[in-house]
Amino acid sequence: VAQDEFGIIERYFARPGASRDVLVGIGDDAAVLDVAGPIAVAVDTLVENVHFPSGLPAEAVGYRVLAVNLSDMAAMGAEPRWCTLALTLPQPDETWLEGFAAGLFSLAERHNVALVGGDLTRGPLTASLQIIGTIDREAILRRGGGHVGDDVYVTGTLGDSAAGLALLEEGMVGEGSTHVALQERFLWPEPRVTAGRALARLASAAIDVSDGLIADLGHLCAASGCGAAIDTERLPLSAELLSLFPPNVAEAYALGGGDDYELCFTAAPAQAQTVEAVLAGVGCPARKIGRLVAGTGVQVRRDGEPVVPVSTGYRHF
Amino acid sequence: VAQDEFGIIERYFARPGASRDVLVGIGDDAAVLDVAGPIAVAVDTLVENVHFPSGLPAEAVGYRVLAVNLSDMAAMGAEPRWCTLALTLPQPDETWLEGFAAGLFSLAERHNVALVGGDLTRGPLTASLQIIGTIDREAILRRGGGHVGDDVYVTGTLGDSAAGLALLEEGMVGEGSTHVALQERFLWPEPRVTAGRALARLASAAIDVSDGLIADLGHLCAASGCGAAIDTERLPLSAELLSLFPPNVAEAYALGGGDDYELCFTAAPAQAQTVEAVLAGVGCPARKIGRLVAGTGVQVRRDGEPVVPVSTGYRHF
Repeated sequence: VAQDEFGIIERYFARPGASRDVLVGIGDDAAVLDVAGPIAVAVDTLVENVHFPSGLPAEAVGYRVLAVNLSDMAAMGAEPRWCTLALTLPQPDETWLEGFAAGLFSLAERHNVALVGGDLTRGPLTASLQIIGTIDREAILRRGGGHVGDDVYVTGTLGDSAAGLALLEEGMVGEGSTHVALQERFLWPEPRVTAGRALARLASAAIDVSDGLIADLGHLCAASGCGAAIDTERLPLSAELLSLFPPNVAEAYALGGGDDYELCFTAAPAQAQTVEAVLAGVGCPARKIGRLVAGTGVQVRRDGEPVVPVSTGYRHF
Repeated sequence: VAQDEFGIIERYFARPGASRDVLVGIGDDAAVLDVAGPIAVAVDTLVENVHFPSGLPAEAVGYRVLAVNLSDMAAMGAEPRWCTLALTLPQPDETWLEGFAAGLFSLAERHNVALVGGDLTRGPLTASLQIIGTIDREAILRRGGGHVGDDVYVTGTLGDSAAGLALLEEGMVGEGSTHVALQERFLWPEPRVTAGRALARLASAAIDVSDGLIADLGHLCAASGCGAAIDTERLPLSAELLSLFPPNVAEAYALGGGDDYELCFTAAPAQAQTVEAVLAGVGCPARKIGRLVAGTGVQVRRDGEPVVPVSTGYRHF
């Protein structure tokens, strides 16, 4: 049965639950949210064949468009609460819509985020999600708060997602558990929302790693008015990444590969023990990979000697 | 010079001014807005060749993506304050970007709306804007508040925009001032923000006319649990529309043509004089075109007799 916009929204996207402080939800000219303090707002768009390969399961697209936005909330120390969705589709494919909604809501429910509105249009497959979170005025985690001498940290492991995407694109689906583990890192990234909130009063600056470590740490440095020096031997690399790729390739994925959605943050050296304790408390691994230094840009060192990385990250244009 | 996302944002979209209550603006992982009460949130997407013809001037695209969202704020009685922009472009064309930004900011500055964030991606031309406004908890103008017996009103005139688009698509640019006036109605729609806020405590229900009068009044009726009866002889038609088209075509544009961005609202008959006075006070013409009635759907009458309209509005799929 051909469905119009309103039927599709009603069927796939109007879900009860997770309706915290929603005065008006889906189905009016705008949603109305009961807000009592500062809000954090971000938007991220996924275009087929640009941000994800054509044929990616609909579940993974729906999951991803929320995950990348949750990651932005994490990097600000905000608590994600509500979202709106602008979804453009070539045609209303029911199986695809069902999968997309399932992926989106599986993550939304886990983070108690309510979908409160959106726009469904016909055109080339594009999903754009706007996230709104609450944030403490005194604990806004910015890119620009870093100081020379601060330690540079990253959460989790780096490079798995880019390696997993490469494996997916080579069609190596299901060839052994190591392959699968890396592909899963690309397909189902886990935004560091709890860690971001825990770091909000502790870190001096933060950014999420979406374009690649060097690119994103570079943005943090530019905003903080300094440079950074990081050591390749300190990069957190997963056992899976190291078992499938030679060390130099694994390192290149970690430095330049995107889509990790880990947090890169800085903190004063005096805070090192507290950072460790707080992140351990929320079950988030993190590793110190270098320092903020005077100057500009990100210097990469191997055994103390400067090296030139193969890739410096995703360029949007 | 090829520019990356960050350069383009810096050059075209990071503007000072209009930064009311913006704690963190463009350039971080999220914007942070200082909000103290309920907010209204909407999103609307424009896809090239679906919502606007290919080759529409960039200024008109930038203006339009904000105008359609301001219209949603108007229909809720909200005060638009901030917006984020998800812009997808085939390539970073400087002339196009300059025009798009000029059109967007010309309207944003007039309504004191700040662009606080966004995402710039490569792909088929699509502009999606998310608007955030403040709204009075006690004066939320919903679609579902109408009662049987309420008068049905529309602001301004109807059908001009659809007629103007038809003229544009026939390539009749610049052929006389009447043509130009109708084309301008399509190109530069004037969202009824001030009227919407003035009506917030007065109207029982409201919706903006974006898909066509019959379609949108139909949504208001469905949400209000009743029907409507409107009289074709009361439709507000512009002199320009009537001078270029025979009466039956003008009427069809007014009933089924989209993109008017006027408000359709309802109010108790006892409020008629107040409605008139309040709208006169903000310089917004409005006309009573019928009543909410028991039942479902929109009945159209000509000289008291039911007629079947030619078009019942834009279908999204």
